[in-house]
Amino acid sequence: MAKYHASTIDRTFSALADPTRRNVLLRLKDEPGLSVSELARPLSLKLPGMMKHLDVLSDAGLITRSKTGRTVSVKLVAGPMRDAMKWLQRYEQFWTVSIDQLAAFVEKDDEK
Amino acid sequence: MAKYHASTIDRTFSALADPTRRNVLLRLKDEPGLSVSELARPLSLKLPGMMKHLDVLSDAGLITRSKTGRTVSVKLVAGPMRDAMKWLQRYEQFWTVSIDQLAAFVEKDDEK
Repeated sequence: MAKYHASTIDRTFSALADPTRRNVLLRLKDEPGLSVSELARPLSLKLPGMMKHLDVLSDAGLITRSKTGRTVSVKLVAGPMRDAMKWLQRYEQFWTVSIDQLAAFVEKDDEK
Repeated sequence: MAKYHASTIDRTFSALADPTRRNVLLRLKDEPGLSVSELARPLSLKLPGMMKHLDVLSDAGLITRSKTGRTVSVKLVAGPMRDAMKWLQRYEQFWTVSIDQLAAFVEKDDEK
């Protein structure tokens, strides 16, 4: 098999497959610029553990980190999530009832 | 740290993080009931390799398999993808311009 390089969307889905990383993304959504220790605190995670998760999110292009003095602040980058959502939207037909289906259903019901 | 059991959404995102598995889901979308060998053929994958990918998809609740004689046919189950999409939709605000923002932009432009 050919050597496999993870594509952007592979890395996005892979980064999202962990509850700690999803928690980080959810917190950054409402509180942009949180520091690494602020992100780690409510999860009772040690800093090295949090740094590993942030590396995965950063490799997937889902966050940026910037350092001011001794504080690293983290910001969300939502673009890759858009692509992941678009991939999933192809399946919307499976859980959405179309207007035509609904009309057919109502007409059938009227015939009773 | 508490022992970690992968939740459904963890397994969904993890299953989607591989191009072979996404290819399987895309093919099943248009051709429900394809056999394991029909799924493996265009990818030049041997059956055991394909079976491993199908196990991951099945554990994530994204496919069902049924056996008729010697043929295993595979069907898509889209439900878990709906939950994954809903998770991602929380971030829509980051790539969608709201009507208010648009109106403010137009008004500002008019003032020039």
